[in-house]
Amino acid sequence: MTADIDAAPLSETAPARRGRRRRGGSAGPELFPQKPFRQPRHIFKPLEAVSADQLEAIHDASMRVLEEIGIDFLHEDAKTMLKAAGADVAPDGDRVRMDRAMVAELIAKAPGEFTMRARNRAHDLHVGGDAIAFSCVASAPNAVDRDRGRRPGNQEDFRDFLKLAQFFNIIHCVMGYPVEPVDLHASIRHLDCVADMARMTDKVFHIYSLGRERNLDGLEIARIANALSVEDFVNTPCVATVINTSSPLRLDTPMLQGLIEMAKAGQVSIVTPFTLAGAMAPVTVAGALTLQNAEALAGIAFAQIIRPGAPVVYGGFTSNVDMKSGAPAFGTPEYMKSAIVGGQLARRYNLPYRSSGVCAANTVDYQAALETTLSHWGAITGGGNIIKHAAGWLEGGLSAGFEKFITDVDLLQMLAEYMTPLDVSEEALALDAIRDVGPGGHFFGTQHTQDRYKDAFYAPIVSDWRNHETWVETGSPTAYDKANRLYKKALEAYEAPALDPAIDEEITAFVEKRKAEGGAPTDF
Amino acid sequence: MTADIDAAPLSETAPARRGRRRRGGSAGPELFPQKPFRQPRHIFKPLEAVSADQLEAIHDASMRVLEEIGIDFLHEDAKTMLKAAGADVAPDGDRVRMDRAMVAELIAKAPGEFTMRARNRAHDLHVGGDAIAFSCVASAPNAVDRDRGRRPGNQEDFRDFLKLAQFFNIIHCVMGYPVEPVDLHASIRHLDCVADMARMTDKVFHIYSLGRERNLDGLEIARIANALSVEDFVNTPCVATVINTSSPLRLDTPMLQGLIEMAKAGQVSIVTPFTLAGAMAPVTVAGALTLQNAEALAGIAFAQIIRPGAPVVYGGFTSNVDMKSGAPAFGTPEYMKSAIVGGQLARRYNLPYRSSGVCAANTVDYQAALETTLSHWGAITGGGNIIKHAAGWLEGGLSAGFEKFITDVDLLQMLAEYMTPLDVSEEALALDAIRDVGPGGHFFGTQHTQDRYKDAFYAPIVSDWRNHETWVETGSPTAYDKANRLYKKALEAYEAPALDPAIDEEITAFVEKRKAEGGAPTDF
Repeated sequence: MTADIDAAPLSETAPARRGRRRRGGSAGPELFPQKPFRQPRHIFKPLEAVSADQLEAIHDASMRVLEEIGIDFLHEDAKTMLKAAGADVAPDGDRVRMDRAMVAELIAKAPGEFTMRARNRAHDLHVGGDAIAFSCVASAPNAVDRDRGRRPGNQEDFRDFLKLAQFFNIIHCVMGYPVEPVDLHASIRHLDCVADMARMTDKVFHIYSLGRERNLDGLEIARIANALSVEDFVNTPCVATVINTSSPLRLDTPMLQGLIEMAKAGQVSIVTPFTLAGAMAPVTVAGALTLQNAEALAGIAFAQIIRPGAPVVYGGFTSNVDMKSGAPAFGTPEYMKSAIVGGQLARRYNLPYRSSGVCAANTVDYQAALETTLSHWGAITGGGNIIKHAAGWLEGGLSAGFEKFITDVDLLQMLAEYMTPLDVSEEALALDAIRDVGPGGHFFGTQHTQDRYKDAFYAPIVSDWRNHETWVETGSPTAYDKANRLYKKALEAYEAPALDPAIDEEITAFVEKRKAEGGAPTDF
Repeated sequence: MTADIDAAPLSETAPARRGRRRRGGSAGPELFPQKPFRQPRHIFKPLEAVSADQLEAIHDASMRVLEEIGIDFLHEDAKTMLKAAGADVAPDGDRVRMDRAMVAELIAKAPGEFTMRARNRAHDLHVGGDAIAFSCVASAPNAVDRDRGRRPGNQEDFRDFLKLAQFFNIIHCVMGYPVEPVDLHASIRHLDCVADMARMTDKVFHIYSLGRERNLDGLEIARIANALSVEDFVNTPCVATVINTSSPLRLDTPMLQGLIEMAKAGQVSIVTPFTLAGAMAPVTVAGALTLQNAEALAGIAFAQIIRPGAPVVYGGFTSNVDMKSGAPAFGTPEYMKSAIVGGQLARRYNLPYRSSGVCAANTVDYQAALETTLSHWGAITGGGNIIKHAAGWLEGGLSAGFEKFITDVDLLQMLAEYMTPLDVSEEALALDAIRDVGPGGHFFGTQHTQDRYKDAFYAPIVSDWRNHETWVETGSPTAYDKANRLYKKALEAYEAPALDPAIDEEITAFVEKRKAEGGAPTDF
């Protein structure tokens, strides 16, 4: 699927040659038996944590927030557009109030589901409906692995995470920089990073809304990478941004610039309030959800003013803080319930739903798996469509971990398998095999088993099912130990996806031109 | 709630005096902020992994197993009773075939839900309906903690696990010996162990079906502990046994003796086939579930012949093996789906449903939490009523772990909190607080937060939410490290529950008498 343009053979024992594109050799399929790229589908009915009446109460409270309290929009053009669309804009301030009829009318224009084009069309991403997409950790300021410890993000780590995101088919998109490469100057960082995402992966990716120029640059690289004309691009969603509100009740200038440019370009905004109950949001889960809903719908409604039908995603990221320290917590019971109600709200508005697979753990231990798995429990049973941060997230997002990436991939592959419909055919019911084996027998050697055993069950990449004695003989390795070995193998097995040399050159030319112009202005 | 009869004060710093009953001192509430004993309730609609038609296909296939293939009942009296009830019993063998009308008629006699009496009535256990009960690990041949390593089970470890099971309110019952104390001779082990369960805990407990005498002894100790007359005992479920079929298609002699004695005594049988797909069951999940269903219903139908209305539980324990080694795997995608379909089947027959919280991990690492949490995902979203092995299970049940017990307690407490209904009252929606704080403010200091912050969120006992720097300064502890410290504190904080001295003496007298008689006969 991913033919190389200048591939060199790689043996499993030969050291990886950094920067050189290569085939995966045997390490890939052997250590990482992967299924082909395929988005899991929700086969279970989403759970409901609140009744229909209670859902309406949250809706009603958030409508009252928009009607009576309002949201500060820190952008003159945005206010002008909102006023023209019928909003009540404070004459000498930023406060914008919208009545519920206006909000309902606007959000009804947003598509309930849509497809995002990837430059490898086999990796096109369906967003919404019963489709699920897992994305890797994003926006971590630090990278960590056991050998090299925790360090500020840098380009090498950034690129290594991109390799993992590309290598594992269970990672369906790259919704943000896995780690922030602070060794690249902020004025040109977005150019190098987005070019890397476009080249080193062939999956749908994300650009940050950190000022209008960066959005425009990112959009242009996405357009070039997808070989789309300017005209086609605006009708072909292929790149996304996350719009985080500044909770409570504020949409700041860069985010509004992002919303405007993305919507104008027909591209995807994932509007996600980061409503931490007890800090930037009320201490009650219902109150935090009320705020989340008001803020998310404000952003989504505004996107529909800019361009009716602009593809958007309802983002839920309500969690709670540790009331002793103020630190954000993830994968908590409150998080799970918030994720489920978030899904109920998104479905009420017929919008795709974004949630996350996250934890507060400092290392790859029981806590890391517990919190990460519980956050997926909330996200997936809640009907999540895009599950962000699903591989590699540690420390409440302050670190992207290489070992954690691998252990999480195992989790994600298991979840995908869990969502594969059960075969209940006559053959699967196995009545004849049960009859043949009879009481006291066993099924190891039967034809029914022989015909199926190779693919009957999910084979984990990290979990160690060996017995205690064998496990002790090999040094009692933990999942962390095993993942430490495996992430390096996965990096070795990475293959750069094919890219038309003309597109490659066009990206290079664009990046060089924009660098020569100084990139995006900064204060430093 | 648990006044001590010979309590001595315990300071948090004083070393625990083994064998001496004591109050918990401050260590308990400080390190382990517990909610009172309360069974969680299913607030979510159970998930369905197969359609109604597919469920009927599994039902139909399992009825054909019972009708056409049959089950071996290795017990003469059982066969006589089955024949008298209308079953087709092979004249010169053990094979028993039942038609579906007979099975349906019998299982319809079983109660859909019931309450089990505990000797502390505050710990009465509701079984079935929307009630959930967590039980600790059971039947492990080995105990393990980090300091002392893995060793064959012994009485001290057995008693220490009982202390933990009693101390933590989230453990609702003790469904089996947490670890097998092999230092006690098998002829009298059940007497000492059941007496310990009756004395050291005041929760509903379990007796093993390992021969008629052991059932009768266990029943008598349960009767004495609950201060019930022989007449009242038979109408008061207060003790349970697990009946494991010998898959495929066999119920062996001790299990049938157990079923008979428990049903005759009006006590609870949890009929649980251990149907490992690919080993003792077909390699397909649907086939393994067909076998599970046939075997479980055979045992349950037989219990209803012995005593119509005998309290029973439908047990599901279908998982898969590692096809490379034959080792059982737990918390796999196949396990999750099996647990969910198991719940669909139990509800089809209006029976309480038993599932498990289990893993194959050798230590308390990412894998342990991942598999354990995924097995709960299946068990709880599947509508499980009794969740066995939910604290301390390691290595596919070959070890009971002290640290694992503590990390699992944190998980269970989180799950209980997850199943607490969300407060969506006017006050919880927090519209006034949102109005007061306004854009750009924060909620830390508001009255709305001040009034609620103490109990707003679940406070974990193991999970470490400190920031990276503080965490590193204190030695980068993992959850395993923290649990290693905490299990000892919990053992110190244990208080023996109050027991009427007359009952205590009666238990002693019974145990002494039976020991003098030689206990239960053994071959060695």
